[in-house]
Amino acid sequence: MSLAATGLSAQQALREKANTTSPELSADGHVTFRLIAPAATQVSVNGDFGIGGANTSAAMTRTDGGVWEYTTPYALAPELYSYSFMVDSVRFNDPSNVYQLRDISTLSNIFIVPGDGDLYSVNDVPHGTVSKIWYSSPTLGFDRRLTVYTPAGYETSGRRYPVLYLLHGMGGDENAWSELGRATQILDNLIASGKAEPMILVMPNGNASQQAAPGESHHGLVVPQTRLPRNNKGTYEESFPEIVSFIDRTYRTVVAKEGRAIAGLSMGGMHSMQISKEYPDMFGYVGLFSAAVRNMDTTISDVYKDLDAKLARQFKAEPKLYWIAIGKDDFLYKENVAFRQKLDAAGYPYIYHESDGGHIWRNWRDYLVLFVPQLFK
Amino acid sequence: MSLAATGLSAQQALREKANTTSPELSADGHVTFRLIAPAATQVSVNGDFGIGGANTSAAMTRTDGGVWEYTTPYALAPELYSYSFMVDSVRFNDPSNVYQLRDISTLSNIFIVPGDGDLYSVNDVPHGTVSKIWYSSPTLGFDRRLTVYTPAGYETSGRRYPVLYLLHGMGGDENAWSELGRATQILDNLIASGKAEPMILVMPNGNASQQAAPGESHHGLVVPQTRLPRNNKGTYEESFPEIVSFIDRTYRTVVAKEGRAIAGLSMGGMHSMQISKEYPDMFGYVGLFSAAVRNMDTTISDVYKDLDAKLARQFKAEPKLYWIAIGKDDFLYKENVAFRQKLDAAGYPYIYHESDGGHIWRNWRDYLVLFVPQLFK
Repeated sequence: MSLAATGLSAQQALREKANTTSPELSADGHVTFRLIAPAATQVSVNGDFGIGGANTSAAMTRTDGGVWEYTTPYALAPELYSYSFMVDSVRFNDPSNVYQLRDISTLSNIFIVPGDGDLYSVNDVPHGTVSKIWYSSPTLGFDRRLTVYTPAGYETSGRRYPVLYLLHGMGGDENAWSELGRATQILDNLIASGKAEPMILVMPNGNASQQAAPGESHHGLVVPQTRLPRNNKGTYEESFPEIVSFIDRTYRTVVAKEGRAIAGLSMGGMHSMQISKEYPDMFGYVGLFSAAVRNMDTTISDVYKDLDAKLARQFKAEPKLYWIAIGKDDFLYKENVAFRQKLDAAGYPYIYHESDGGHIWRNWRDYLVLFVPQLFK
Repeated sequence: MSLAATGLSAQQALREKANTTSPELSADGHVTFRLIAPAATQVSVNGDFGIGGANTSAAMTRTDGGVWEYTTPYALAPELYSYSFMVDSVRFNDPSNVYQLRDISTLSNIFIVPGDGDLYSVNDVPHGTVSKIWYSSPTLGFDRRLTVYTPAGYETSGRRYPVLYLLHGMGGDENAWSELGRATQILDNLIASGKAEPMILVMPNGNASQQAAPGESHHGLVVPQTRLPRNNKGTYEESFPEIVSFIDRTYRTVVAKEGRAIAGLSMGGMHSMQISKEYPDMFGYVGLFSAAVRNMDTTISDVYKDLDAKLARQFKAEPKLYWIAIGKDDFLYKENVAFRQKLDAAGYPYIYHESDGGHIWRNWRDYLVLFVPQLFK
């Protein structure tokens, strides 16, 4: 048993028996979760597979042979879902499902319910290249890791491409948009269907104190932070031109405002707002997804001073698109109302999209799908 | 609780409480595993952290508050280790450790005991770029995914680099060497210390029937195969020049035999032997790591015919290095003895390295560390 348990040998792992089949998706969209745990007294499955994507906790029923099982009484809409088990009050992931994603300090299992026009799956379309590449940041004081997507055909076309800089939220990192956000699958699919222009996608690490995602820097396989990092001191925003300059040097880009977009979620929306107004000639397109658009403490950094004057300068330079999206239940909703009132009062043009739901990846993936087709036309 | 359990919102996951701290490494190299599971009656930890890297199963002891704990009575040598828990006979991964790797159909937790000259960790050295890129294979009939490492400086140097093609074993895929094999960290570290030439590393998918690793093709988030794939029909070997041609077109390579190496483990060692003798002018360096070097059924494919004559042709063309490594306990040991006898009888030069242990990643990482410094000098 100890041999079989380690899974470190290819030959040994081949002979490892999975716990059971879980999750299982029926043809009509119901999902069944299973766990063989004969000695357990209480097992539940917890995730965002409730009706309308609500977070839900469902007791699993013990059947023959110690198999615990739960089937949703409703069909699930096409979406990427996340779940885990509670076994006698201990949170474990499903040992039958190798697909897991980390969000900050927590791994959860995922599954996808595919559907017509499924944009989150790897479909049978040409695929872009996804690279992990390091750039040097003199402002922040170290080399830093980026995720870069170049569209299918980039290697052979010889042409230049526009660039979307896509920023993560607090607790995220350079892996967040390509993993939880399915951004590379979304781009592959939107480009293949002709709904989006072929473009480069740059997903930097927005934590000024961090070189790379947990486990990817020389700090080793550390436990990811579980507290909000206190690194919004304006230095990340100040360092951003280093990223743009690196990308323009390294890839065949359209080196012009009309060939650059910046968008982000939550803290990344704040960064997108701050950076785009700080460098009004850098980005032609701006996307704020559930953005933290509060007034920052102006004593922290010059970046946070003179917001109104900088917004005036930005809108005088006429961005092609300023797009704001948020869910009705988002805890940043009021902050966004206030920010839109500011834009309205000054007569600055923007497009507003309001969705259901709160501060969740499901919304951010949706917003990306809505935002990207509007770029670089 | 259901909100906290899903981990799908960045803000929510920040507030998620980890089970406990596990694994914990003491300053003197002892490791402690922990799990808070008050209702459990029996918990063990299983992995390759035994003395000398042996697979081991250790009962954990219940302490106050339902905390189960086990500390190794010995210090662990610097190495990458793998483990999982058995909780009342159910195999779960450690909910406190987000670092896991998939081997075929099984996820296991990992940790690294760092040491002097640690080659498996991300160290504070220049980092190469790691890309997932797709190429077209007319021979196999679809687009296929590759992992490509380009060394630090590639983007700006303008120079050409030699290429090591590194092949996985049965049940592996294009992710195996960069994940379980730590190949990109090993290359970063060996190049930074001057022990290896800067080189490109190409890690293809060696399963002729597969486009990409599980979850990375349009077959969706399928359960990985648990049976040996029956796809050694010579077609992968026949298709290999497509990969070399794609790499030579797409990257700045040394387009010559003396700028190409091929090495692989187990089935990948078989592929390396077969491909290098099939195309005797393609590779200047060959590495067989725990290779399956048996005589293949010659009725399956022309590739497997005339082995002796093809080896004679290959050695007449004088490869710069033919390197064979295997562990004393490997189930392919006898097969390798027979193959070396064949080479010896014909007077073909090769270098042989025999290690302790069996058919395990620990050995394959070691072999890569020994092989790479011999290349392209």
